[in-house]
Amino acid sequence: MLETTTAPPLTELANAFNGGLITDPTEMAPYLLDWRKRWQGKALAVALPDTTDDVATLVRWCKRHHIPLVPQGGNTGLSGGATPDTSGRSIVISLKRLNRIDPIDPLNNTVCVQAGAILQAVQEAAQQSGRLFPLSLAAQGSCTIGGNLSTNAGGVQVLRYGTARELCLGLEVVTADGDIWNGLRGLRKDNTGYDLKDLFIGAEGTLGIITAAVLKLFPLPVDTTVALVALDSIDQAMQLLTAVRSGNGANLTAFELMSGCCLSLVTRHFGTCQAPFPTLPAWVVLIEVSSFSHSTASREGLLACLEPALTSGLIADAVVSESAAQAKALWALRENISEAQALEGANIKHDVAVPISSIAQFVSVASHAITSQFAGSRMVVFGHLGDGNLHFNVSPPTHDVGATSPDFLKWQEAINTITHDWVHHFKGSISAEHGLGVLRRDESARYKSPVELALMHRIKQALDPDHLMNPGKVLPPTSEITPCADHH
Amino acid sequence: MLETTTAPPLTELANAFNGGLITDPTEMAPYLLDWRKRWQGKALAVALPDTTDDVATLVRWCKRHHIPLVPQGGNTGLSGGATPDTSGRSIVISLKRLNRIDPIDPLNNTVCVQAGAILQAVQEAAQQSGRLFPLSLAAQGSCTIGGNLSTNAGGVQVLRYGTARELCLGLEVVTADGDIWNGLRGLRKDNTGYDLKDLFIGAEGTLGIITAAVLKLFPLPVDTTVALVALDSIDQAMQLLTAVRSGNGANLTAFELMSGCCLSLVTRHFGTCQAPFPTLPAWVVLIEVSSFSHSTASREGLLACLEPALTSGLIADAVVSESAAQAKALWALRENISEAQALEGANIKHDVAVPISSIAQFVSVASHAITSQFAGSRMVVFGHLGDGNLHFNVSPPTHDVGATSPDFLKWQEAINTITHDWVHHFKGSISAEHGLGVLRRDESARYKSPVELALMHRIKQALDPDHLMNPGKVLPPTSEITPCADHH
Repeated sequence: MLETTTAPPLTELANAFNGGLITDPTEMAPYLLDWRKRWQGKALAVALPDTTDDVATLVRWCKRHHIPLVPQGGNTGLSGGATPDTSGRSIVISLKRLNRIDPIDPLNNTVCVQAGAILQAVQEAAQQSGRLFPLSLAAQGSCTIGGNLSTNAGGVQVLRYGTARELCLGLEVVTADGDIWNGLRGLRKDNTGYDLKDLFIGAEGTLGIITAAVLKLFPLPVDTTVALVALDSIDQAMQLLTAVRSGNGANLTAFELMSGCCLSLVTRHFGTCQAPFPTLPAWVVLIEVSSFSHSTASREGLLACLEPALTSGLIADAVVSESAAQAKALWALRENISEAQALEGANIKHDVAVPISSIAQFVSVASHAITSQFAGSRMVVFGHLGDGNLHFNVSPPTHDVGATSPDFLKWQEAINTITHDWVHHFKGSISAEHGLGVLRRDESARYKSPVELALMHRIKQALDPDHLMNPGKVLPPTSEITPCADHH
Repeated sequence: MLETTTAPPLTELANAFNGGLITDPTEMAPYLLDWRKRWQGKALAVALPDTTDDVATLVRWCKRHHIPLVPQGGNTGLSGGATPDTSGRSIVISLKRLNRIDPIDPLNNTVCVQAGAILQAVQEAAQQSGRLFPLSLAAQGSCTIGGNLSTNAGGVQVLRYGTARELCLGLEVVTADGDIWNGLRGLRKDNTGYDLKDLFIGAEGTLGIITAAVLKLFPLPVDTTVALVALDSIDQAMQLLTAVRSGNGANLTAFELMSGCCLSLVTRHFGTCQAPFPTLPAWVVLIEVSSFSHSTASREGLLACLEPALTSGLIADAVVSESAAQAKALWALRENISEAQALEGANIKHDVAVPISSIAQFVSVASHAITSQFAGSRMVVFGHLGDGNLHFNVSPPTHDVGATSPDFLKWQEAINTITHDWVHHFKGSISAEHGLGVLRRDESARYKSPVELALMHRIKQALDPDHLMNPGKVLPPTSEITPCADHH
């Protein structure tokens, strides 16, 4: 591994490709700070290639000069995976100019897009052709498909349609050698060797740079119906999930959970959001059912499950949308939770998954462990119950809001550890849909077995032997891993 | 790489683990011949471990003595992937004693099974708990989950539920070092590093040995309705597919195509199978729609699409099942094609996929290329139209059936090349669901780019540096690859 001792000839790079190359500190600044403003990096330059060939040129040039590369999409990640470190040695490659969306193939139900295409633009292109691209998440107006795939993004439709991984049929990737792998296949079945596609998906740019993808499309639903249901316990929510899934199959397109605390935060901070229940329930689920046959099928399918649940006392109360506007208003109660929690002040976030059958127990024991050690902490628990994925967040005691909030963040590491130790106990994941980046890199390594870490390091070594692809993300250097003592 | 010059101490191995170790040639014989009786291998021994620890012991012992290992499940593969070579140096590891099926988790909709569990036993265990394990294929009575995952098996429900890959949430694998990777997670979302699971799935035992898996389960449909539809062209079948999918969403659970020739073969060789049409159609599709809400929903959903298609002349004729027995009888016409073709005599098989939008054109040009060069060849084309996956088979001219059939097989290599060159032209796959094994290993390498092959070789080298895991399968030695001249 050669270390360059003199500054590399950036003018040579600028001449070698046709894209933009930013070196002005003010122009570079937005690329060097993450969306949550938690990580501030430095870089030699920010490159904005226009073509896959230019990405390959950049990678080869960086390899020659031993310069680390940090790929970046919409810069909306929550784990610091797209921010360079503070050494100032890296080049950030922004893929945002590679944003072509090819014409949709309506018979194959696919679309080929470049990595920099904005998620919402892909959704809209699909819709204009009478198709659904179901990946749907808060940052969709600015996140890119390349970032979605590199972090295997989730969102609110995973229950039915899967994560970004499951929505992708083929990839184009620039390897760490600067070669272009054209795996842009639009096939539902292909058993001709190792699954390279899924290795690059979710690798957060540490094995190569995704430059384009073939995405799966689906029929647009004729109609959707949304219900908001009040319940006393997560156990009841689980029973309702089973009933609604059995009665609706894949027409069940969302099943979201939120604690009463979430609902009260949203209604407090968003004047236009009204809770539809006379008293604050302990738990609320939002259920979405889609129709494909006729417009009333989703409503019929949902009511057929809710009516017996009301009669039997499984659920306490329910409201069902009668129009698209009402459906949207119910969704707003769910979608504004993160923002409401931010408006409330400091907060500690977790993005965890456990087997769905363990959710109730996990929430119970982990909440108790946190509130008994940090009295008054408010558990802002919400998420994708149908996927076993919770945003298990914590807000400070009400009396601490405001002036003393910074104190609360001192508890962050301890609260992270309590939460993630319990996640580990229930055989869960400490990063369900946000990826590891730098935020969860070392914690994750603590919970992984030495065998799994060794396999990951071998793959990294095989595909990026110079360790120039987004170094420091996902995998800690082997020497820095402190294994978790299995505490149960 | 050490070559042992003396025979390794098999008694040492026999003492090192508790499973069976067969060395008697007669007892070994069934493990050394593939199901289609195309490959006959030799082995030092056949090992039948009872535990994952014993698999690990075996692998470590083989590594120490530099003995190649050939994992085997139900020995029903079609590509020779589970048969040892003729050197007699290998040990076959049959996983069939590792056949435990754990209790089903009804809330998480998962079941954990060992690799040797028979597919049909898993289907039945799921059904007894009111759940569906949808993987469904001809060999289900004897194939194993480990084999299904190692070859990423497909079958007739992929359109709705995906291949074996998509039905698996977690794996346990014995690595080439003889370590046990416990990745038996039952999570829908987990973004904590590289996707090791999908690397082992479909690798045909060349990167490690799958010993257990966590599988996804689904709600059981309340009812299913099957239609058999007569059409004049594949283009019409494509239009019908789009209409039925739009009107039924994920309740469309199968959409199978067969040429009129297939139907006539089945009715000729299976007296109990009757074609339900007065004249032989050019093409037939079998459509299955499932209900989850109420028992008549599948019939309503199907008729709502078929009636306008009949009126507009898109389809020529259709019969719709009115009972489970009728549905089964219609499925029999599809399921007996392979057997009917075998009863008819020699035949040449292909398992290809192309983008669904290219199927009509592919069938047209590839059929023409074959029949114009080999006059009278009968195209026995059938498969999973909704997946773009065709069994594009060829039977000899009618006058050649019987005595001259062996002559027909002389054409096999030429017909393979014509077919696969056209598959390549349409950006397809020459092995959609059967894997590469040894049958398609060299052909596949011919169509892959050097970049893709190099990535695959690097992964193999990283995870199995001694090349002891099912050697000679999937990947040819680098020196033996003759690239395909792109002929269009």
